[in-house]
Parts: sequence; structure tokens; C-alpha cells
Amino acid sequence: MTDLSAPPFSSRHIGPSESEQQRMLEAVGFESVADLVAVAVPESIRVKDRLKLPAAIGEAEAIAELRALAGRNRVLTSMIGLGYYDTVTPAVIRRNLLENPGWYTAYTPYQPEISQGRLEALLNFQTVVSDLTGLPVSGASLLDEATAAAEAMTLARRAGKSKSAVFVVDADALPQTKAVLATRAEPLGITLVEHPLDGELPECFGVLVQYPGASGRLRAFRAVAAAAHEAGALVVAAADLLALTLIAAPGELGADIAIGSSQRFGVPFGFGGPHAAYMSVREGLQRQLPGRLVGVSVDADGDPAYRLALQTREQHIRREKATSNICTAQVLLAVIAGMYAVYHGPEGLRRIAHRVHRYAGALAAGLREGGVEIVHQEFFDTVLARVPGRAAEVVAAAAERGVNLWRVDDDHVSVACDEKTGAAEVAAVWGAFGLPEAGGADPENAADALPGELLRESAYLTHPVFHAHRSETAMLRYLRRLQDKDIALDRSMIPLGSCTMKLNATTEMEPITWPEFAAIHPYAPDGQTEGYRELIGTLEGWLAEVTGYDAVSLQPNAGSQGEFAGLLAIRAYHRDQGQGERDVCLIPSSAHGTNAASAVMAGMRVVVVACDDDGNIDLADLDAKIGKHRDALAAIMVTYPSTHGVYEESITEVCAKVHEAGGQVYVDGANLNALVGLAKPGEFGADVSHLNLHKTFCIPHGGGGPGVGPVAVRAHLASYLPGHPLHDGTAVGPVSAAPYGSAGILPISWAYVRMMGADGLTAATEQAILSANYLARRLAPHYPVLYTGRGGLVAHECIIDLRQITKETGVTVDDVAKRLIDYGFHAPTMSFPVAGTLMIEPTESEDLAELDRFADAMAAIRAEIAKVASGDYDRTDNPLRNAPHTAESVSADEWPHPYGRGEAAYPLPSLREGKYWVPVRRIDQAYGDRNLVCSCPPLEAYED
Amino acid sequence: MTDLSAPPFSSRHIGPSESEQQRMLEAVGFESVADLVAVAVPESIRVKDRLKLPAAIGEAEAIAELRALAGRNRVLTSMIGLGYYDTVTPAVIRRNLLENPGWYTAYTPYQPEISQGRLEALLNFQTVVSDLTGLPVSGASLLDEATAAAEAMTLARRAGKSKSAVFVVDADALPQTKAVLATRAEPLGITLVEHPLDGELPECFGVLVQYPGASGRLRAFRAVAAAAHEAGALVVAAADLLALTLIAAPGELGADIAIGSSQRFGVPFGFGGPHAAYMSVREGLQRQLPGRLVGVSVDADGDPAYRLALQTREQHIRREKATSNICTAQVLLAVIAGMYAVYHGPEGLRRIAHRVHRYAGALAAGLREGGVEIVHQEFFDTVLARVPGRAAEVVAAAAERGVNLWRVDDDHVSVACDEKTGAAEVAAVWGAFGLPEAGGADPENAADALPGELLRESAYLTHPVFHAHRSETAMLRYLRRLQDKDIALDRSMIPLGSCTMKLNATTEMEPITWPEFAAIHPYAPDGQTEGYRELIGTLEGWLAEVTGYDAVSLQPNAGSQGEFAGLLAIRAYHRDQGQGERDVCLIPSSAHGTNAASAVMAGMRVVVVACDDDGNIDLADLDAKIGKHRDALAAIMVTYPSTHGVYEESITEVCAKVHEAGGQVYVDGANLNALVGLAKPGEFGADVSHLNLHKTFCIPHGGGGPGVGPVAVRAHLASYLPGHPLHDGTAVGPVSAAPYGSAGILPISWAYVRMMGADGLTAATEQAILSANYLARRLAPHYPVLYTGRGGLVAHECIIDLRQITKETGVTVDDVAKRLIDYGFHAPTMSFPVAGTLMIEPTESEDLAELDRFADAMAAIRAEIAKVASGDYDRTDNPLRNAPHTAESVSADEWPHPYGRGEAAYPLPSLREGKYWVPVRRIDQAYGDRNLVCSCPPLEAYED
Repeated sequence: MTDLSAPPFSSRHIGPSESEQQRMLEAVGFESVADLVAVAVPESIRVKDRLKLPAAIGEAEAIAELRALAGRNRVLTSMIGLGYYDTVTPAVIRRNLLENPGWYTAYTPYQPEISQGRLEALLNFQTVVSDLTGLPVSGASLLDEATAAAEAMTLARRAGKSKSAVFVVDADALPQTKAVLATRAEPLGITLVEHPLDGELPECFGVLVQYPGASGRLRAFRAVAAAAHEAGALVVAAADLLALTLIAAPGELGADIAIGSSQRFGVPFGFGGPHAAYMSVREGLQRQLPGRLVGVSVDADGDPAYRLALQTREQHIRREKATSNICTAQVLLAVIAGMYAVYHGPEGLRRIAHRVHRYAGALAAGLREGGVEIVHQEFFDTVLARVPGRAAEVVAAAAERGVNLWRVDDDHVSVACDEKTGAAEVAAVWGAFGLPEAGGADPENAADALPGELLRESAYLTHPVFHAHRSETAMLRYLRRLQDKDIALDRSMIPLGSCTMKLNATTEMEPITWPEFAAIHPYAPDGQTEGYRELIGTLEGWLAEVTGYDAVSLQPNAGSQGEFAGLLAIRAYHRDQGQGERDVCLIPSSAHGTNAASAVMAGMRVVVVACDDDGNIDLADLDAKIGKHRDALAAIMVTYPSTHGVYEESITEVCAKVHEAGGQVYVDGANLNALVGLAKPGEFGADVSHLNLHKTFCIPHGGGGPGVGPVAVRAHLASYLPGHPLHDGTAVGPVSAAPYGSAGILPISWAYVRMMGADGLTAATEQAILSANYLARRLAPHYPVLYTGRGGLVAHECIIDLRQITKETGVTVDDVAKRLIDYGFHAPTMSFPVAGTLMIEPTESEDLAELDRFADAMAAIRAEIAKVASGDYDRTDNPLRNAPHTAESVSADEWPHPYGRGEAAYPLPSLREGKYWVPVRRIDQAYGDRNLVCSCPPLEAYED
Repeated sequence: MTDLSAPPFSSRHIGPSESEQQRMLEAVGFESVADLVAVAVPESIRVKDRLKLPAAIGEAEAIAELRALAGRNRVLTSMIGLGYYDTVTPAVIRRNLLENPGWYTAYTPYQPEISQGRLEALLNFQTVVSDLTGLPVSGASLLDEATAAAEAMTLARRAGKSKSAVFVVDADALPQTKAVLATRAEPLGITLVEHPLDGELPECFGVLVQYPGASGRLRAFRAVAAAAHEAGALVVAAADLLALTLIAAPGELGADIAIGSSQRFGVPFGFGGPHAAYMSVREGLQRQLPGRLVGVSVDADGDPAYRLALQTREQHIRREKATSNICTAQVLLAVIAGMYAVYHGPEGLRRIAHRVHRYAGALAAGLREGGVEIVHQEFFDTVLARVPGRAAEVVAAAAERGVNLWRVDDDHVSVACDEKTGAAEVAAVWGAFGLPEAGGADPENAADALPGELLRESAYLTHPVFHAHRSETAMLRYLRRLQDKDIALDRSMIPLGSCTMKLNATTEMEPITWPEFAAIHPYAPDGQTEGYRELIGTLEGWLAEVTGYDAVSLQPNAGSQGEFAGLLAIRAYHRDQGQGERDVCLIPSSAHGTNAASAVMAGMRVVVVACDDDGNIDLADLDAKIGKHRDALAAIMVTYPSTHGVYEESITEVCAKVHEAGGQVYVDGANLNALVGLAKPGEFGADVSHLNLHKTFCIPHGGGGPGVGPVAVRAHLASYLPGHPLHDGTAVGPVSAAPYGSAGILPISWAYVRMMGADGLTAATEQAILSANYLARRLAPHYPVLYTGRGGLVAHECIIDLRQITKETGVTVDDVAKRLIDYGFHAPTMSFPVAGTLMIEPTESEDLAELDRFADAMAAIRAEIAKVASGDYDRTDNPLRNAPHTAESVSADEWPHPYGRGEAAYPLPSLREGKYWVPVRRIDQAYGDRNLVCSCPPLEAYED
């Protein structure tokens, strides 16, 4: 009998082969993976049973099953609007960006020198937003329009002069925006007041204006803005970017802040996401911006270079003083939106907008001619029709014609036009209203329905980048040129501790651009989304099985939102138990900064618990803090394995102590990839966790998003999971705009679990632990390994300590990180969770050759450090301090350094076989913050 | 009234914008494109009417129409076999190679320094072939198995000792191989004899053995080989690469030559192609190999480097002495096949083969148990069943179960297993034979049906490259690393005269990997291929309209095959006219070398006609040659516009003279892109043309194939177009294995014509002419432009003359070409059609910025040449002679050159914004030919 079965997908996902695994085990000193795991992972938390998941299938079979699921979605023309509009993703952008691992496997650009390509792409996005909104500073991107509105609300509260706790929301705001604002306002003590924005404003600290309104109504808000400013309140405009190519910019009408979605700039529906939201602000508010902000600085040679600006605003620095928990935020989608603008240019965007508007006009004219009442005379793309008692009938008739309309109420139907709308769609809509379809729309001659006072006069997208890439060839090359500046997983290992840059397999990625997944509106009727909903339900079930919880919600579209949702569940639970006073959240000092920020957003007080010298929770301090806050104790948030990369033995004890005091246990699932198949948080004592599908379940990082941050809870918390944004009466409101968050990318994680099965998932965890321990052993002769657990083992990542080295030689963590670039590697995580250290997570996907290549580089760097110590290298003019070295610098006619050019560029011989050349030298962070430039700089900036 | 229509696709395909076009016209000195064309293109050949083509549609509409066509193909499981087997293209290879412009837009690796990635990939392919066939030297790839067999036949004839004119073909050879051999044998006076290869062999110069046979039969051919050798004949084995992982290599059985298809190594059916064929030979025959051969040489620093070896064998050097007209030959597909082997490795391939074999065994066992007679007891993957009188019924029953089988004759059905065959397929086949489907196959326990004496014992794929890329991550990075070594269209303009590197638009490319186009067997029943056949019929019609001919065949899968087919049509026509003695083919001295080689293959005698100093046909010499050969005159082959890049005024006169003498006029359509919409060869006097879809109609070059070379003829030649390979009695036999050649890529050209429409196609031609003339004007101050037509204009390409420069300065065409690499460009065509010149074709797809960038580079190079002339640069140690410069060389600790490093690496400031770094220095061509290595060199070769 011969085994004829194809090797499982897991053998492609997991890097090391069996023989490599054996060699690694030998190096670590174990006979088998089982032996290693038995020592590394505390017995007390180990599961006894294999995960109950369907047996793994191969790549072709998984594609076939996904095709079958996709086939149960029905792609109709969706003219539903409400913040989501159909759009054409230019094929050159789809293939060379959205479907290109050079773009989608990149990490967040914390290491700016190896991220110049995507930073330039984000700067394009910021320029688009800033130009179109007429506000000078735009952030890099946010999660969705609704959460962007919530971020704007809190920004207005902290930046404004008003002492009021009231935030006024346009009655004509998007329904999901209202719902998410409500969720976010309540824990912070903000009172939301819905208001028509006609007549007098209530006292408030801020006003949100939807521009144009959800109903399609378009009106100037100059007077509202003036009144708000008069009262010391700030004005937030939720604006449609495409409309802004034709109508006055929010900044010109008095908005202090603009937010919105960039979805309709080439990003598919995806059943609700992922899409990038935007936020821009007026001068003076830029330091209050949530999320990331790309800025221009200079490198060591004084050449312009991009990097994230004003990072001190971020939650990972400010922790409980943070004002937002936003981290990963849809970068890949923001890049697509920016490239859409690059490809079309201002005249192209204006033409598209014009066409959308004129088709809406023609559609309205036809309805009026047929006797249908049109509610608003001024609109951009959305026509609101009054059909007393007939709304459902019209919507059904439209569906029969292949078009989804929106039933506002029994008497109103709204119809949103988009880039794809043409005569056929308009005719079908007329037919649905019972009018003759013949005759045809005459959009060329349709009257303008834009108020004259709102016609846009200011220029936008005047920068050359929006004029230079109009042919497909030019666009293709621009994308390639930017991609080539960066390091992503398609070049080399990205050994980021806590960020798990594992393989994003092609088979997982392919389905997301199939029309049956990509072209579904989030509010499409259930009959059109059976495949999606089955996929989502199945995935939720699998995640519940993997985590040991009872219920899972996939709505949170980032880990940060999952955290927030989990804490909201705890809060609501306590309240329903009559213990609403419980508001203290214990957080160990080693926690991710996001934890604290989320707790504050959920209305909790953060109390920090100390850690001992080994990085474990200090149980004595825990007892003390519990004692002090016993009656107010809401929860503890712990990361497991800890952010120090160890399996704390005491975890069950910690859980018991908190439970005993009436608190809930929140286990941050950031490190779930060290547990899958071996232990389940829901079984070893936790009540709630969020996961990061982009960490553990193969959603690609995309240069900083998309993310999916499911929240998983035990049964007693199940009814407190996030509610549907369009459904009233849920215990906890929605945390994201779309019912299923970033639904469009869920096929990725579905495929991963389906192809790995229980054994594959467990093997991946085991290999991740083995690989981390292998690297720890290889690095230990050169660098102290900071925290280890039982048997001197680490979990799935390891921390090396440079503090002594820095003290003795002046060589810093930064120097090592930047020098790694010369060796072709992205740096490990720097100074987290401990300053002066590097945290390294190899993941299961890296094969032995790559692990060794990295270890060799680190050893070579250590030898360089030794030369600094010995005086063989100058203390300040050495390859470490001057790293990274560009090709330009090592081939310059003058070479002013005491070490050789070859030493600078090719410190290991293997680099001669294919070297990554960094495009800029080390970037001056402070310069860029002092001289903040956050949109595309003029070309003269690049002159020598 | 406002124009709301989206800009046409042509505005994305054509590089220069309207305003850029205006600036270019000013530079060339014309008011409008119409004025330019009126002067450039002779009035005598200009068409009066717009092309009759459907109106252009947008990209989304074209995709929708192609989806509709695809929907009319039905994808069944095809177990037809006959040289085509279903296979799994690993997703990582599909996305990152087949769907990646970095690979598919590359040109043939004539400039080896910028082609190291694809040359390494081809060397992998050669190593696979050489290892598996057990023959030491493999060529890079051929067009298909049938033409490879024909090439082997002619190789055997010229290399063997026998004087016989007989070539013996295995009666169990593939039917399409027999048919193509017949087509190719007849004009050369070779007699084909079909023979069972049992018993005595007839006298012959060669024998072709199918191994395993088309019927599935597997047998050793040692005795046949010995007998053939005894008689002085060579032995050709047509072998299945997958089978060879289990059975003895042809070289071990005595074959001198092995040929076959590499399709089942991951390349989709594509309704017959494109797929790469292979050929390998024993020691001593390597200089006889047709097609391209990659070899290892060294660069200027002595480092190993790849390049095409033994190029003096090629038709473009040997012309009428050439023994094959093969040029472009399926490189992209060969690369896929090689990567498939890299990803699976020897043990993976063996496992796949084993599985295929065992399922075939289980299938046969089940049939036997059910009382069905199995004809051959020894087989690899194909089971021949005898079902007297029931064959059609069984095949129909299988189709009902979703499986295509092959009806051999009324009494026999054959079933071929492949990589995708599993229990379900086997059960369906049993059901089709009327047996119970239950029970299930038991392949693990199936008996081996391989003859014991044939079990493979020799090792293969022992080179590390076949063992190092087993995880998807490792494979992804290997593909990226190779891609990054090369210049393709995704980096910069490739200004190759006569090769037209225009845009291969994403929308054109996307459909070819849809399963409905990719997964159709070439012999699938008509009912399953309606969409394909409509697409093909439509495209043939459009090409007829564009060229002015009456009939088109898309069967030739390369331009060379189209030429051959066109000449065969002329030959057959003369014969049918009772003028079989007409066998002289006039060819101007400026012609592509392929012309002469094709004429010889078609049994014609080549007579060269002189050209005058302007590169035009010398009419006096033409008259003289016609006079001399009047009665024997078969044809003239002319390229129009000429290979010198001018529209010869005399073309109509030339045609008339030849016709008057009873000859036919063959216009080589290589330069059709300078005529589309402006002139039609079929109307200005020609009788037949072949086109190159990869030149004019956007099939990507793929690094040297795929190609499609349709042949177009006037009505009197229509019945002499190539016949179907499985249909008897056609006037002319097939020239390719598959009925529609490279059918799988025809959606590309279909989409191009559909999206451009008449106006877009014409505008593209006009822009190509304008761009060539613009470049000629920009280059003229620096280099003499060699040939011009009326008004000092060129056609779509221009030739600059370096002969005087070389004479004065020693700087050669080669120096300029290699120096262009330092400027980031692929060189223009070198020394064709005139030695010592460069031919430049910008195409319509390059925008003004790129044209200027190229012109700036050429001007800067001219300034460098001036420095050599003036003595500012050393005559031998200068940046031109030392080009290209690697990063390693310019950053070496020692810099031995009198010019600066900066001058070497960044001769223009714009290069500092994104420089392509060539991976090797100038390659020593002669060294590699003296020390021929044509499979992967051992790693030690790379040691310093």
C-alpha cells in the first residue's frame, strides 16, 4: 500500500520540511515536537482533544468549495447607496496592486526606509483627501466612515472650546454612522442629538453634517458651520469624495474636520468592506488626528524621504492617555483609492462625477415626467422618490430587473447612481416604478441638480503625480517602481514580534477578487447573500471551536475594534447584572498600548498591574490591585502568551483571582497563533477575547490593513456582541459601519482553516514555537535572550536584549534595525514590550534556510558591534550608525568612511546573489515633525 | 450637451495624450497626424475606407462579452489524453508568473545581462528535460510536440549517416504528430513510413518511437534502437515527461533525440496551446539543435552568467542555410513547466506520476472485473478498452457524467488519467462503461502496470534548485528574485525594432486564466467549445478585414509557422494549377532570416534580390532575377514596410512584376502594425501574409513566446490553408499539433481589437509612426538616421547608424547597447537589418516622457562617445566599453577605472530616483560556446 495523497496544503504553508524540522529540534534539544510542546506550554492550559474541524482539503478543492459558495451569492446592480457605491477598479490596479503580494504582504510602514513606495502611495491618498476636502492635513486612513465619524466626534470634544457634552448629528446622516456614533458616545458620556440642521442648533461641542445627505439632499452648510463656531463647537463634514470634485469643499464651507469613505475610488463593495475611510482637518488640529499620518522628512543625506509623522500621538505611545485605539487602518484600500485618482487625474474624476450626476438627473427627470414625486430638487447622485405605500413593490420590481434599490420606508425609495450607471440601469429603474423603459435616458442634456452656490471653483490634484500616469503602461511602471522600493514578504522574512507575518497563500487570496464576493453591497437583500452568510457563519463556528468560546462576531474590522467590542460586552453584562459601577480595568504593564486606549473608550478606568523581572504578571501586585478595586473591578485584560513571548504558568490563577472578585477576564488574542490547537482561552479561564485574523488567520497586512478583529465570548456574554448597524434594539450597538465588517476578505481565513484542518493548524502552532526557540538558540551566543519560560523556552517569539550592548558600545536598537536593512531584512519589533530590545517572531512559514540567513545576519551584526567595542570601528562613523546604505552612497565618488564600501554594502557574501537596495538613508524623524508636510511635496523638493 | 462617455480604451493603450501628440507633431514639423501620414505612407497603397469592425467598447464591457463567450464553453473533465493532460497550475506560479507582467511582458533574452532571471528559469527547464530524458543537452523549448517531432526528423536526416529518404513513424504515435510530420516531410522529399515497430525496420535515416504510445501501450524500445543504429539511422523518442519519472529514460534505451510536450507540468489545456515542447539530444548532436539553447558563460568579472548559446545555429544568422525556422518558442510556458518541477521536486513529481499510474491501474482493474477487455496490459496513464460496437455509446455516457473519453474507433475507447484524476472520475468512467460506480477505486493497492524492465533507476533533478523551494513562501521569493534581475515592459520601454513591444493590457490578459478558456482540451467535442469557436471565427474575420485578405487561419502558433503555412499554400496552388515546377522564392537581401529558412522548409529555392543604398528593393535586380527564373518563379517574399523601416514606394510595382511572371506575392506581416487602418496587403497586391499577433495584436512576448502567427490569404489560396490535424483529406496538412494552435491566448487579441475598434487601431498605427519619427528627429542631431522615405520620414521604426562612430572611436553597437542598460533600458535591435546599426521602434504605447527619457539617454551616450573621440575618455577603459556596471562593481573597494563611479552608475540625475541594477557584467559569448554547459551548474560554480 502506497500513500498516493498529495502533500497537504500545510506542507506548503509551513516552511520547514520534516527533515529541516528534525534538524531544528536537534538544535533546540528535543526529540520531537510533542516533547518540545510538552515543556513549553503549561500542562494546565493544554487541551486534550483535537480541534473539531472538517478534515483538511487541498487547494483545488478549497477553490471549488469557495466557487460553490460564491455561486450562492447573486450579483445584482446595487443602487442602494448609503455610503457604498459601485465602482470600476482599473484592471491595471487590480492585477498589479490588489492581487500583487509585493503590495499586499507588506507590513505597516514603521520602518520607513524600506517603505518608501507605500508611503508615497499613502501621501498620494492624503493629497487627494486634503485637496478634495479643502482642509490642509489629511491622515493616512481610518477604518470606515462610521468609525471615522466617531473619531471626529471625540476629536471635536477634546479640541473644541465648548464644555457641552452634546454632539449634534445631522438627521440626514447615514444610518450606520448614527448607530456607531451612539455606540461610541455612550461610554464616554456624550449625548447624541439628532437634528435636521435647519433652525437653531442646540448647545453642543460639535456638529456632524452629511454632505450630501443620506437621502441624497445636497445643501450648503455655511450657516450651520457659522452658528456652531459661534457657540464654540467644531464642525464635522461627512463628505463624498466623488461629489467633492463638483461641489464646494467642506473646508470652504467652514468644516473643521472632514471624514468619509474612499470606497468609490475603485474599491469593490466586498459586502461592506474593507474600504478606507479618511479624515482631514484644518490647520491647528493636525496633532489631534487619530490614526496614522504620513509626512515628509529628510534622510541622512538630506534627501526628501517619507515616514509616519507625529507618532507620539499614537496609542502605543500614549497608552491610557491615548484618545483613539486606531492602529491598522485599511492601508491597502487607501493605496488603491489614491492610485485610482492618480490614474484618472482631476479631469477624469470630474468626468466620472459629472456622468454620475447627469445620470441621476436623467433618472429623476424621467420619474418626474412619469408623475413620480422627487423629494429633493438638489442632489448629486441619489434620487429620493415618494411613492406612497408602494415602496416595497417598487423595490421588488427593480430586483426583478436585476437592480437593488433602497426602501427608505413604506412611502419612499431611494436610487443612487454610480460610476457604472448607464442608460440600461436608468431604464430598469423607470420600469420598476411602472414607467415605460423605452425612450432612454438623455444624461447629456439632463439639467444640473447642483445648487449654483455649491459649484466647485477651487482646483484640486494639481500635483504632477496626478497627471503623469495616464496610460496603462505608465501606471504599470509607477506601481512597479513604488513596489520595488519596499520590502514585503515576497522578498524576505519579516521577523516582527507580535505581528506574525506568515504566508498569505495565493489560493486564500484569489477568491476575494471574484465578482461574486467583490461586487455585493452590504445591504443587499438576504436572498442575494446566502453564500456569504454561510461562509461567515461557518467561519464564526470554526473560530469558536479554535478559541473555546461560545459565540463569535466578525463585525469588528480591526483588532482594536474587537477589543472595544469585547470591553463593551463586559460593560453591558455588568450593567445588566446590576453592577454598573464596575469600571476598573486591570492591565499589566507589558500590555499592548491599544488595550488601555480601548478600555478608556469603553468608559473604563485603567489600573496598571506590575510585572516581575521575568515579564510575568506580579501576582502580589495583582492581589493588591484587586483588593483596592474589588467592588469596582470590571475586568482584567491580559495577553496570552504574554507580550514578552512566554507562556505564563500563572494564567489560570490570574483568571481565578479576577473571577473571584467579580471581574471578567479579557484575553487579548494577539498571540493566539501560539495557542491554536494547543490551548483555548475560552476554556482556560477567559470570558472574552478578540483575535486578529491578519495575525493568526492569514489576512495579509496590506502595508497596514485591512484587518479583521473578531470578538469571541463565552455564552453569558453572547447577547452583548455588536449589533447590526441597521437594526434597532440590540443590547450593544454596532462597532463598525458594515454588518460583517471586512466581509470581503473573510474567504481568506475561511480557506486557511479549510485547507489546514485541525492537524495543520496545530502543526503550524507547533512549528511557530519550534522556530522561535530555534532562533533563540541561534541568537543566544550573540545576544542575551530576555524572557524565557519553563525549560528555558520561549513561546512563538523571542526578545533579545541590547541594553547592555548599547551601554557599552553606543550601538542602539535603531542601529541594529537599520543595519538589518543592509542585510536585506525588515527589522524585528523595536523596543516593545521593553525599550532597548528587539522582539523576533519567525512564524511557521519561514523555512530553515531563511531562518539561518536571518540568524547569520544577526551574528554578523554582532561581530560588527564587537568591532565597535574593540575600537576596530569608529564609535560614530561605522556601518551600524550609518546604516542603511543606499546604492548611491556606496557608489559615490567620495567615500568618507573609515570602513570599506564592500563592508557597507555586502557584509555577507550571499548578498551578492540578489541584494535589496534601500532607496533612502536613515530618516530624520524629528525634522519631519518640526516641518510637517503631509501631502505630495513639489518636485523641486527632489532637486539636488 | 456634454460628453459623458468614458475615455476609450485606446487612450490607455496609446501612450501620448493629445497634448503630448501635439508637441510631438510640432517637433516633427506637421500640423496634424493626418498630414504626417499623408506624407509618410504612399498614396498608392492607402485605403479609402474606415475598417469595418464593431465599434470600440470599454474594458468592463469587453470583459462582460468575454465572460459571455466563456460561458458558452463547457468545462468537463477531459480524459482524452493524446498528448494533452489536465494538470494543476500551482496558484503561486499562476499569480506570480503567468499573471505577472514582470514575466509575461519580457522579451526574448537576446540581451542576456538583463535576462538572467528568465535565463535561469529556462536553464531549470533544460535541466528537467535533460535529467528526465537521460540525454545530456536540452534546448530551451519548441512550439509543440508535433513540430518538435518534425524538427527531430530533419535533425536526424542531416546528422545521420544514412542516405535513405525514409523516416519511420511509430504506428502508435500521436495522430497530430503523424499529420504534422506528413506536412513537413513532403516538401523536403522525405518519405514517411508508418510501422508497428515490431519485426524488421525498413531502411531509413530515422525512427520515431512514441513512449508510451498514443494507445497507452508502454514498451521498451531498446531493440528498435539497436536495429536503427545498426542501419545508420537515428532514434527519436517522443516521450511523456511525467511518465519518465517512473520509467527508464529514452537516453538509457538508446534514443539519440527525445522530444515531447511539457504541458502536463502545470500548463493549462488552453484548447490546445500554448504549451512548450522540448527536445534533448545525445552528446555530439547539440550543434544541430533547432531553437534556442541556454548556456552558462562568464561575465567580465569572471562570474557565472547565463546567455543563449551557439546562436550561430539560428535562422537569423544562417538564413537560407538554416535548418529550421524556429524563433519564438513558448518560453513563458517552458518557464512554468520548469517552475512546476522546482516546486514539486523529484519526489513530488514521482508521487504525482505514481498517483496517475495507480489510478489508471485501478480504473483498468475495475473495467476488467466488469468484463471489459483491456487491450494493453502495460501502460502508464492511458487505458485502452475494447468495447465492440459500443465506443460511441460509452463516450456519450461518460460525457453525461461530466467526463470526456476518447473514441478511438467504433470498438475502442481510451481513457487517460492525469494529476486531477481521483476516485470520483474513475467511478464516473466505470459508470459510462455500464459498470457499478460504487465500491470505489483502490489505487493504493492497484497492481503496477509498468514493465519491470522499464522501471526507472537513475536519479533526476538532483540539483539544489529542485529541493530549495518547497514552501509557497520560498517559491514566491524565488520567482520574485528572478523577476527582479530582468528588464521587462513593467520597468521601461523596450525599443526593439521589428519586435513591437507595445502594451499587453491587463484586461486583455485576465481572461486567459479563466477556467472556461484554460481548461478545455483541444479535442473536446464541439458542443463544449462553442464560445471558443465563435471567438476564433470572429477574430479570423476581423484579421481578414484588417489585412484585406479573404481567409485567415489561426492555426500557426508562431510567425515562423505562419510563414511556412503561407508558402505551403503557394506551393499547393501552383501544383493544382499544373505548375508544380515553380519553386523559386525571391527574397530581398533585407529580409528577416526566417523567410529564407521557411522557404527552404517549403521545398523552395531561395534567390536573393539586391537592395539599393536606401534599403529599397533594387528593381533592376528584381527584373533580372525574374527574367532568369521566370518559369520557375513561385513567389516573392517581401516585408512591408521594409525591414529598414520605410514604406517603399515601389511596392505595387513589385507585386505587379511578380504576378506578371506567374509568381505569387507573399508580404511578411511582421510590420503590419505600421499598416493597420492605413493600408491592406491583401488589397495592394499581395496574395498571402502571415501576421504576428504578439507584435501587432498584443500577445505578450513572454520572454520568447507564446506566439501566434496567423496566415491570411486571398480567395484563390483559401482552400490551401492548414488542415485540421485529426481530419484527413485536407489539401494542405496541419502545421501545428492543435487545430487552432495557441487558442488559449486568442482572447488577448480579440479583446484588443474589440476595445480599440477601427478608430483606435488606426490611431495606434498613426501614433506609432509619429513616435518613430519623433524619436528619429530627437536622435538625428546625435546619430545619423540611416533610411528614410518620402519627406525624410521613417515608418514605425528608425535605424541609427554607428558604423562611422565605430570606425572613428572604436565604440561599437554592442558598447552602446550595453551602456543603455546602465541607463535602465533594454537595447534596440542590434545590427539588423544592417550590421553596425541600431533599429528603434518606440510603439504607440510609450508616452512622451518615456520617449524623451530614452532620447536623453541616447544623447548622453553620444556625449560619452564624444569623450572617447576627444581623448577625455580612455579608448578601452571607459564607461561604454565597461558597460554594464553592476552595483557590486561600482561599490567595490577598488575602483581601477579612470572615470568616476558616479559617471558609471548614474550618468543622468533621473537615474537616482529608481535605478535598475543589472545582476552581471558584460557576458563573454565565446567562452560559453567553447565550454558548453546547458543545465544548472553546480553551486560551486558561484563561489568566489
